[in-house]
Amino acid sequence: MRLNRKVAILGATGAVGQRFIELLQDHPWFKIEVLAASERSAGKKFGHACNWIMNSNLPTEIAEMPIVNVDLESIRKAGNVDLVFSALPGGLAGPVESELASEYPVFSKASAHRMDQDVPLIIPEVNPEHVGLIPIQKKARGWKGFISTDPNCSTIQLAMTLKPLMNFGLSKVIVTTMQALSGAGYPGVSSLDIIDNVIPFISNEEDKLECESQKILGSFNYDRIMPDKLILSASCNRVNVREGHLESVFVKLDQDPTIDDVEEAFRKFKGKPQELNLPSAPDNPIVVREEKNRPQPRFDRKEGRGMSVVVGRIRKDPIMTIKYMCLGHNTIRGAAGGGILSAELIVAKGIA
Amino acid sequence: MRLNRKVAILGATGAVGQRFIELLQDHPWFKIEVLAASERSAGKKFGHACNWIMNSNLPTEIAEMPIVNVDLESIRKAGNVDLVFSALPGGLAGPVESELASEYPVFSKASAHRMDQDVPLIIPEVNPEHVGLIPIQKKARGWKGFISTDPNCSTIQLAMTLKPLMNFGLSKVIVTTMQALSGAGYPGVSSLDIIDNVIPFISNEEDKLECESQKILGSFNYDRIMPDKLILSASCNRVNVREGHLESVFVKLDQDPTIDDVEEAFRKFKGKPQELNLPSAPDNPIVVREEKNRPQPRFDRKEGRGMSVVVGRIRKDPIMTIKYMCLGHNTIRGAAGGGILSAELIVAKGIA
Amino acid sequence: MRLNRKVAILGATGAVGQRFIELLQDHPWFKIEVLAASERSAGKKFGHACNWIMNSNLPTEIAEMPIVNVDLESIRKAGNVDLVFSALPGGLAGPVESELASEYPVFSKASAHRMDQDVPLIIPEVNPEHVGLIPIQKKARGWKGFISTDPNCSTIQLAMTLKPLMNFGLSKVIVTTMQALSGAGYPGVSSLDIIDNVIPFISNEEDKLECESQKILGSFNYDRIMPDKLILSASCNRVNVREGHLESVFVKLDQDPTIDDVEEAFRKFKGKPQELNLPSAPDNPIVVREEKNRPQPRFDRKEGRGMSVVVGRIRKDPIMTIKYMCLGHNTIRGAAGGGILSAELIVAKGIA
Amino acid sequence: MRLNRKVAILGATGAVGQRFIELLQDHPWFKIEVLAASERSAGKKFGHACNWIMNSNLPTEIAEMPIVNVDLESIRKAGNVDLVFSALPGGLAGPVESELASEYPVFSKASAHRMDQDVPLIIPEVNPEHVGLIPIQKKARGWKGFISTDPNCSTIQLAMTLKPLMNFGLSKVIVTTMQALSGAGYPGVSSLDIIDNVIPFISNEEDKLECESQKILGSFNYDRIMPDKLILSASCNRVNVREGHLESVFVKLDQDPTIDDVEEAFRKFKGKPQELNLPSAPDNPIVVREEKNRPQPRFDRKEGRGMSVVVGRIRKDPIMTIKYMCLGHNTIRGAAGGGILSAELIVAKGIA
Repeated sequence: MRLNRKVAILGATGAVGQRFIELLQDHPWFKIEVLAASERSAGKKFGHACNWIMNSNLPTEIAEMPIVNVDLESIRKAGNVDLVFSALPGGLAGPVESELASEYPVFSKASAHRMDQDVPLIIPEVNPEHVGLIPIQKKARGWKGFISTDPNCSTIQLAMTLKPLMNFGLSKVIVTTMQALSGAGYPGVSSLDIIDNVIPFISNEEDKLECESQKILGSFNYDRIMPDKLILSASCNRVNVREGHLESVFVKLDQDPTIDDVEEAFRKFKGKPQELNLPSAPDNPIVVREEKNRPQPRFDRKEGRGMSVVVGRIRKDPIMTIKYMCLGHNTIRGAAGGGILSAELIVAKGIA
Repeated sequence: MRLNRKVAILGATGAVGQRFIELLQDHPWFKIEVLAASERSAGKKFGHACNWIMNSNLPTEIAEMPIVNVDLESIRKAGNVDLVFSALPGGLAGPVESELASEYPVFSKASAHRMDQDVPLIIPEVNPEHVGLIPIQKKARGWKGFISTDPNCSTIQLAMTLKPLMNFGLSKVIVTTMQALSGAGYPGVSSLDIIDNVIPFISNEEDKLECESQKILGSFNYDRIMPDKLILSASCNRVNVREGHLESVFVKLDQDPTIDDVEEAFRKFKGKPQELNLPSAPDNPIVVREEKNRPQPRFDRKEGRGMSVVVGRIRKDPIMTIKYMCLGHNTIRGAAGGGILSAELIVAKGIA
Repeated sequence: MRLNRKVAILGATGAVGQRFIELLQDHPWFKIEVLAASERSAGKKFGHACNWIMNSNLPTEIAEMPIVNVDLESIRKAGNVDLVFSALPGGLAGPVESELASEYPVFSKASAHRMDQDVPLIIPEVNPEHVGLIPIQKKARGWKGFISTDPNCSTIQLAMTLKPLMNFGLSKVIVTTMQALSGAGYPGVSSLDIIDNVIPFISNEEDKLECESQKILGSFNYDRIMPDKLILSASCNRVNVREGHLESVFVKLDQDPTIDDVEEAFRKFKGKPQELNLPSAPDNPIVVREEKNRPQPRFDRKEGRGMSVVVGRIRKDPIMTIKYMCLGHNTIRGAAGGGILSAELIVAKGIA
Repeated sequence: MRLNRKVAILGATGAVGQRFIELLQDHPWFKIEVLAASERSAGKKFGHACNWIMNSNLPTEIAEMPIVNVDLESIRKAGNVDLVFSALPGGLAGPVESELASEYPVFSKASAHRMDQDVPLIIPEVNPEHVGLIPIQKKARGWKGFISTDPNCSTIQLAMTLKPLMNFGLSKVIVTTMQALSGAGYPGVSSLDIIDNVIPFISNEEDKLECESQKILGSFNYDRIMPDKLILSASCNRVNVREGHLESVFVKLDQDPTIDDVEEAFRKFKGKPQELNLPSAPDNPIVVREEKNRPQPRFDRKEGRGMSVVVGRIRKDPIMTIKYMCLGHNTIRGAAGGGILSAELIVAKGIA
């Protein structure tokens, strides 16, 4: 396994692109080689084109890097790239990622290809076996590279908590989300819209939660993904929080486990990233808080360097079976960090 | 019906007490005669004892009024009171309200007596017939006055939307609330706890929602209230909003009405307050917004002068039957305004 | 004086344009006849093109109005307009307002023409005599109409408090502003930029405060405005407040008035709008609050229906002469309301 | 120099007390031996008595520690303490600190003794020579220990920027502060008071800024502190920011340095803590940001692990001489971190 991989970041100037840069700064396997963005920024120095919104300072060597346009030719010219992270916005992502996948492994945070039949939708702790789609995809499309996608931010943290519940016969999920502002990108939500307010709507978010969960929790039959029969109903809200999505979850199980059983299932949950000791893997994918008023976005979003999902308030539910709150860092585990962990898994497995 | 009633307000210096004062300023039936509060404030002028937090200015004549202690003797001495509004905090409310009810009609926003078997828990549009408990209560307790209570703020707005759904065979409700800061009183929630945060816990709130709904929607058999068989499960959160509780509601109905049926049921819903044309009655107890991103606390909380509940995003639900968002002004309809409307109903019916 | 004037609003879909619509809804003199905006919105119904952000509901008849393009020809065709309010953004305002002024009286909130030598920069209570520039302007430019401008929001409220201090020999002003989000328009400031933050910079704002004040407080010598010799130094900040600019002001006076003298000067200050009893004139242009912790944006911005400036914390200053806080509603007095009051003044004087 | 000092923290459950605990967790010289608080908490385990509001998790070994009462006898019994950090609230601090100083070196964040003639008011980079008061104090009071105080949070960051300006003949300062919520302690400011608002008043804060600065910048004549002749005028505001005070500063200098001169003076400023390489000393006491919109609380408060002051927007001022913005972390440099640095200085000098 050759580990000193050179990476390109597509959509590098956006909120998720910036988080990729921040998280890859001292990464032991991946080194930033190329920063790419749309025509508007291409040709400029990153430090000039980007309104850096991370809390950390923009690293000087990154500020000095030129931005290249997001097309195969430009990226090929710009450096000797081994793999590509895509943080492109919706419309652009579809064709650009397909173009680049003809040559490079592309790890995408965009929704464009998530539901493509031969594209895996990966949460490394949840469905690592879905990477088996990659050779099928390469063959079918005649590509040297491939596309691997990560789910939507609100889906990732929820699906991580659903996975250990499948042992109890998971059948139905009702979820109301309270999602952070950074999930809408930058500039994203106007301050005038959210001060002293909640917005009870996020475009397409409920659909994504409902569809993606079935694919993620589905089984891979060495040919394609058979979606799980889970029924999920979501109601999504934007709240005045900078980072960290909080979700109120009601779950129907076939069995009737005790609260302690459920808590233990959450605590014991580990996956391939922990087994393989991947660089971005948190020790505990799920952390359970005992306090009656946790998890809270401000206090819990950085758990496991933003890669753990924090669960609390596990209670019996008189209609479904259990209810609980879960919290995840939407731009780390829910975006750039999740993408990096997927790439680590696929590299560690020798697929990229 | 003698309409020029003199009222005392208990707990006048608190957040709900202040809202009572504001709403009663130009009330056609009720006139503020006595302001009462706990020992700490008693004896002072209201303007000195109270940290006025309403957006309107504190009326000068109110600022000049003396505060009397919250006991029967003090209130009796302070004026010729016809009825009493109680905005007392939990612990104090129980005994004080009982003492005062021996002589006065007491309309209480406190939770102390809500679940007492002979005390009505009133939402005037929903269960006006429950006032039939009052003569039973007076007789049983040998009181000249009585206690009538209003539900918890988060319950009121939810129960108002559940009432018209009973025609479709309402059986189960799952609700996640996003509640405003003013619901915690003043000073209430520390700014350090809520900035860039959500608190996924409100003490006793879920229990109140679950129990009070059954009583409110129950039937009065001329002797006592038979609780409704509704099963309700709640998950309550505090968000960084000043006023206006937003609730994400999933409802199981025996029938399968269309979205239009449900919308029409909400729109057509009227009750005794509208029929009797009570002064604080909104024209429409429920207002339906068509926009995909409404209701929102900041824009919709003042609907019907804060007395309407605003519903939006009515959708089919794949697990329950329908889902929707509802919003109410928690210190007007959910507190002081609701209490005043209850008093208007009971006065109009000649019971007080 | 014919009072039933038909008006066009330029930039009607923006934050200030919306405030014009709201304030003109029941205006006794002015009636909205034409809504104009840039090409992007022209041709659409207002209700479709505009993301309405006022707290009040969008009036149905306004929602149904078509939007016309902001050029002379389109506006001429669209209706029989008597005068024009411009809430156009910077770049567009300059040429468009000049074009329209050839035919109509144009009352502009844009900065483009504020410092033009023959264009008045009006605060009706402060420098009503500057309208004397209008005939000079019309003659010089050969226009049937004219341009009259209002100062920048942060300047208006400050200049209103400086005017009565001129009697004490005003010479120097140091001001630090804490300005509301709505001052940046809509969508304006990203929520991610302002949550848990202050931004200590507003583009061009300090220059505007420094230049405009001298013109406003200058004297009209029947030919042109002689700028006042006042020296003003500003430091401007954006804070997490929806509406209402708060300013910390330190003033150097030649005389040494007592605090009472200054307070009395503020309280007694009246101007032409009060004298002429103009529809939008507040009873008191300046309201003084005695409390040690006022004015506050949330509580004081609506004073005088948003047309009064609220002053508090008047203190002796050991370096300058006095210091105080002042607050104004930046989108009412500081924008649309100020523009309407200017138009009322000029109509009342028979100039338009 | 014996470095393994055992420390007691007074007022350990409060916001500043918690910050002391957090910062001392891995301190190379100081080890937490005793946690003390008022009667209400004494006797309980820290984890039970304290509502932990730091972003980091409460360390388990701290949670298990018992809280002792804040009196000499209790602390003596509780452990073998070498020095004491006091984060006591105002009223309590005066007598308790005096009692403890009879035996221990007391480093106090409270205001009680700041202006005592024989008590130093230390910012280690600014006036380290003022520790010369300590032997004078011990002798005069007959104490084995002593009291050393730190200035108010808003004063510390300002005084650090004023010190290097003294070379240009500093004579007058006008400052408007925008202070963070954590400066008011916990629970401190009610969320209802600050949402969508600014509070233009902080009790005693302006006086503290005005008096403390003169003492800090004063000279020690081997007998007492001769206050500097600086005249300072302050206007203090509370804004909706969690941590980080921002100050708008206008300074009158005898000389007329260029912006570059001033910037260089800020950048080159170092003091005893840097010279002695104290554990909590930041590399750069003052960091200058070049961007036109910095410093900002959210991005800059953690500079130098919260121990640096960040300056930006240095401009010529037409009334004074220069103006600039400065930002400091009010609970690190402005409170617990400042207190620890003072203790490090005094320990390093062999005085404690």
